[in-house]
Amino acid sequence: MTPEVSTLSNGLRVATQTMPHLETVSLGVWVAAGARHEIEREHGISHFLEHMAFKGTQHRSAQQIAEEIESVGGELNAATSLESTAYYARVLKGDEGIALGLIADILLNSAFGASELEGERHVILQEIAATRDSPDDLAYDLLHDAAFPQQPVGRPILGTPDSVRSFTAVDLERFLTTHYVAENMVISAAGAVEHKPFVRHAEALFGGLTGGNIRGDGPINYVGGTRTSKKPFEQSHLLIGFSGPSYREDAFFTAQVFSGLFGGGMSSRLFQEVREKRGLCYSIYSTAWGLKDAGLLGIHAATGADMMIELIDVVATEMKRAADKVPSDAEILRAKAQLKAGLLMALESCSTRADQMARHLLSYDRILSTGELMHKVDDVTPELARDFAAQIAASVPSIAVVGSGRKSQKHARHAEGVAGF
Amino acid sequence: MTPEVSTLSNGLRVATQTMPHLETVSLGVWVAAGARHEIEREHGISHFLEHMAFKGTQHRSAQQIAEEIESVGGELNAATSLESTAYYARVLKGDEGIALGLIADILLNSAFGASELEGERHVILQEIAATRDSPDDLAYDLLHDAAFPQQPVGRPILGTPDSVRSFTAVDLERFLTTHYVAENMVISAAGAVEHKPFVRHAEALFGGLTGGNIRGDGPINYVGGTRTSKKPFEQSHLLIGFSGPSYREDAFFTAQVFSGLFGGGMSSRLFQEVREKRGLCYSIYSTAWGLKDAGLLGIHAATGADMMIELIDVVATEMKRAADKVPSDAEILRAKAQLKAGLLMALESCSTRADQMARHLLSYDRILSTGELMHKVDDVTPELARDFAAQIAASVPSIAVVGSGRKSQKHARHAEGVAGF
Repeated sequence: MTPEVSTLSNGLRVATQTMPHLETVSLGVWVAAGARHEIEREHGISHFLEHMAFKGTQHRSAQQIAEEIESVGGELNAATSLESTAYYARVLKGDEGIALGLIADILLNSAFGASELEGERHVILQEIAATRDSPDDLAYDLLHDAAFPQQPVGRPILGTPDSVRSFTAVDLERFLTTHYVAENMVISAAGAVEHKPFVRHAEALFGGLTGGNIRGDGPINYVGGTRTSKKPFEQSHLLIGFSGPSYREDAFFTAQVFSGLFGGGMSSRLFQEVREKRGLCYSIYSTAWGLKDAGLLGIHAATGADMMIELIDVVATEMKRAADKVPSDAEILRAKAQLKAGLLMALESCSTRADQMARHLLSYDRILSTGELMHKVDDVTPELARDFAAQIAASVPSIAVVGSGRKSQKHARHAEGVAGF
Repeated sequence: MTPEVSTLSNGLRVATQTMPHLETVSLGVWVAAGARHEIEREHGISHFLEHMAFKGTQHRSAQQIAEEIESVGGELNAATSLESTAYYARVLKGDEGIALGLIADILLNSAFGASELEGERHVILQEIAATRDSPDDLAYDLLHDAAFPQQPVGRPILGTPDSVRSFTAVDLERFLTTHYVAENMVISAAGAVEHKPFVRHAEALFGGLTGGNIRGDGPINYVGGTRTSKKPFEQSHLLIGFSGPSYREDAFFTAQVFSGLFGGGMSSRLFQEVREKRGLCYSIYSTAWGLKDAGLLGIHAATGADMMIELIDVVATEMKRAADKVPSDAEILRAKAQLKAGLLMALESCSTRADQMARHLLSYDRILSTGELMHKVDDVTPELARDFAAQIAASVPSIAVVGSGRKSQKHARHAEGVAGF
């Protein structure tokens, strides 16, 4: 059960992990091209390109693509993030060649037909409209803008209605040929798959792809600040973000352990103090989120506008306590146990395994072993967690409040003003 | 890899499936008590009871419960549905005894402390508020009310703010002692688990539970009709439901195959005609949903209010075509392949496997084999699918429109009026 990695003649890497007990396989192509690689007038083009991949190639119509994968019971999907775009499938054993062939066709031979492009514009405009109906999505968009203003990583991945209306087939072609190059891409498969024949098939399909490695991502500058929306919702959403470590730093594991004990699970401080003891919300959590050269420690809570001040005060008190005092060994051990067990559980899924291998190759140029990840978690001490809390508590926060109507600004100012941030 | 089932002295059934390659185990208790077993003044009490299970027992505080499971890296959760409530955990190999012991304690020794009860009331009121910010949730609530008016299965599972405010510890105790009886319950575990020691542990923990089998669910009467909301959203949500078969009927498999080809995946008729060819929405799908004595075939689409009339016309045309003409063999085979492969993929997860075994025992009093399920899918013919479409197209639909503002009623009337429904 160790991953195998080969490199094609053009520099494209292929990773597989055989999981011999499985009857299915997850596989896909991960491209190191996402929203952070877009210049301003390209805002949203990574995601648009991902959509257009499914809209027909020089060999297949959109309908043929859908029918070909679904006739073997397979699923084909894609997702765009800030640093990468993934095209992946899950199929039964023996059908991995069909799936990889389809993914190769949609990535290498996309047609960008005029009527398909117009149709997909409308689809994406509706996708954007759906995010405006979601107070969570709105709050996260505001948080990212506060943390990274006027930078690609601070913008919504979907783009804006205006940018989505502007893209032409020429724009898509240009972004594709610039970024979808061999050394920027990883093919990954886990489950009922064998390395050698899979690599041979990958070479046949992708061997002709241009080499090169042009990421074009500029530096990230965390700024911080406050953003609010007056749009009315039943619930108020509060997001607080702090500049955190990149996933490439060992400190990222400290941030994860801290986030776990602070707001990760049912036994975490925020869950216990805010929800269990005071009944102040249904949903509260913190997360550590990383990019290759930046990160955020984020806290999210949703509650009624009339309880927001009290909720903010409890969060601030907990932040101050975390910054002042080392957590107990029991708390640290619990947070570590959750991280480590969560990883083992997740890796029993072939989809998670394929995704993890691809992301490791794009991020670290090698696949980190589960043991190595465990050790990095184990290396976090109570003092490191306290120091991390003290560091973020002394830093400039990013704050977003959505759903409190005219009170949103008042709530945001209260969050800015209270001790701890 | 065959499931094993034992029955405890009091009639409680215990199912396990050893998945020898796994290092983790999913387990839980499924109770045949849910929202449909509530009399009117109990509306929402199943869900409230599920929440209170985590709020402390005669032996453990809420915090101790959370700390005990998370200190071994485990996850503990619960979910309430119309026909059942599930309390489940996922833990590493060897920790299944800890998890089962905790679940036994929260189910058998719940304390219903006064301050915990008040606190949890506020938490659930916020959970309800969150559903009001979700146009999907609102639309589904309206659809269920149209399909099953003035019946438990037509009401929101969470209850109403008024009902949630009304419950006392005595109410919770009464519902618990009436419904949480041995023959109404199933313990299920899949993954790194062995049957005999697990059953011995289950007997020690649950053997003292009262027997009996009191479901108290009344008959379901599908009515149909139209419900709209003027609440403003960016997107309009259209839901159309038709009376469909129960999961106990072979016709349920026909409904599933029909739903697959009609609106199940990317190659389905609705996805191709509404999204791919016309760009009329981001999200459109159909589902076949079943209870033990009723079911719904549901269609869901979200788009801009200005495109809703055209979208409804396309859905109506497709419904008429489905009712008039048998689908091609290729379409039927594709829908079957998706259902069968989807089942195989899902069952590679120990969580899905544990859930499936428990639901089968509660629904059919035995665990259906994967082969048997495959055969039932294979038995669906193109004619059966056409006949099912013709039957629902000639029946009274349930229609819900949310998000079109003052146009919601106009859109609903258009949906009522067009050919096909």
